[in-house]
Amino acid sequence: MPRYKLTIEYDGTPFAGWQMQANAPSVQERVRDAIAAFCGEPFIPRGAGRTDSGVHALGQVAHIDLAKDWPPGTVLKAINFHLKPAPVAILRCEEALETFDARFSAKARHYRYRIVNRNAPLVIERDHAWRVGPPLDAAAMAEAARHLIGRHDFTTFRASQCQAKSPLKTLDVLSVERSGEAITIEASARSFLHHQVRSMVGSLKLVGEGKWAPDDLRKALEARDRTRCGAMAPACGLYLVRVDY
Amino acid sequence: MPRYKLTIEYDGTPFAGWQMQANAPSVQERVRDAIAAFCGEPFIPRGAGRTDSGVHALGQVAHIDLAKDWPPGTVLKAINFHLKPAPVAILRCEEALETFDARFSAKARHYRYRIVNRNAPLVIERDHAWRVGPPLDAAAMAEAARHLIGRHDFTTFRASQCQAKSPLKTLDVLSVERSGEAITIEASARSFLHHQVRSMVGSLKLVGEGKWAPDDLRKALEARDRTRCGAMAPACGLYLVRVDY
Repeated sequence: MPRYKLTIEYDGTPFAGWQMQANAPSVQERVRDAIAAFCGEPFIPRGAGRTDSGVHALGQVAHIDLAKDWPPGTVLKAINFHLKPAPVAILRCEEALETFDARFSAKARHYRYRIVNRNAPLVIERDHAWRVGPPLDAAAMAEAARHLIGRHDFTTFRASQCQAKSPLKTLDVLSVERSGEAITIEASARSFLHHQVRSMVGSLKLVGEGKWAPDDLRKALEARDRTRCGAMAPACGLYLVRVDY
Repeated sequence: MPRYKLTIEYDGTPFAGWQMQANAPSVQERVRDAIAAFCGEPFIPRGAGRTDSGVHALGQVAHIDLAKDWPPGTVLKAINFHLKPAPVAILRCEEALETFDARFSAKARHYRYRIVNRNAPLVIERDHAWRVGPPLDAAAMAEAARHLIGRHDFTTFRASQCQAKSPLKTLDVLSVERSGEAITIEASARSFLHHQVRSMVGSLKLVGEGKWAPDDLRKALEARDRTRCGAMAPACGLYLVRVDY
């Protein structure tokens, strides 16, 4: 029973998220249906991580097992054919060891959050970035972000419905860079708590607006209190960029 | 009768182009309707240049005349309010001299053409770039592009329906750069012939694929013969980036 590693891009806008659920369209279900249409096996792909409704992926990873030993190029083309017209595409398909697990073998997950800092509504990037009107101080946001890097109890930035056993996580990267009206936040860790990136970005935005000093982010972290978190940033600006194994 | 200069962004996908026409949605008409909804004056905005069906703009410029002397910030917010939900946004509104003409005062027009060089279908950038499967040699494309810079008879790269008086144009910039799977072509000139950028890009793609040598582009230019042009690149990859005055 050969195992395949799929690297998947999707536009999260029309989906209720990666994870299959009753009565709502999911990326996982869409990929499963494409696999079934190709080879008759409705194998449910196992993803590296859930993405919420409206969150995009440039490089989600999932594994599938098929009964027949198809060439990876055939699997890739066939699934992409049957995915149309959904905004989901398989970028790469590789044979994997049977011990490979998209979720449990992952060593690092890389997310990007995109803010467009301007007053005019987004049209070309509608649903693909967070438009923030007030001028943001990206240098102050970058300074504040450094307080979150490292191993911490991230309870402040954790959704109430988060199922992780522990709020302790090690954040390896949290950078903020401005290029014109675009502000890009990169976040990397072995794993994240539910809503962690969007919660951190929501608080960084308060720093950017000057409502919080950079040090207020450290205080919010140390409070380990969800009520101290800034309003969560919207899903449409978040991208799962890459998963390392 | 105060004149205003509008800088406009739009997603060209749902439009038959900038220019108003019977029985097809245009950006120009949509902006006119928003002006009328705001102040009761159905003034037709005069654009710096037509863009074809499906071509996008990051910085189209148009001028309008209004009967009343509104503050520019009011004009901007009101038009944006009435443009919703069309994918058109006014980025800037400035008062202009009555001698200012968006089309005839323009000193330079800057276009960008975006190619994504990969096999997988585009999903996040669907309708916003040209996907080209075969690997393209961007260095060869850049070398070929240099043959087109300067003052030339661009008949080879001119649409049969082009209304310009002369095929002589001065191309100031034609650059090709690769970043990962993205290839970006920048083109700048005082003005362009109809379909000139997409025609040049279509021929550059042949160079990228190795079907043409870089020097074949020079020969095609010198032939002054439309039948020597490569198949025109699709509209969805083209952006009117900026107009200088």
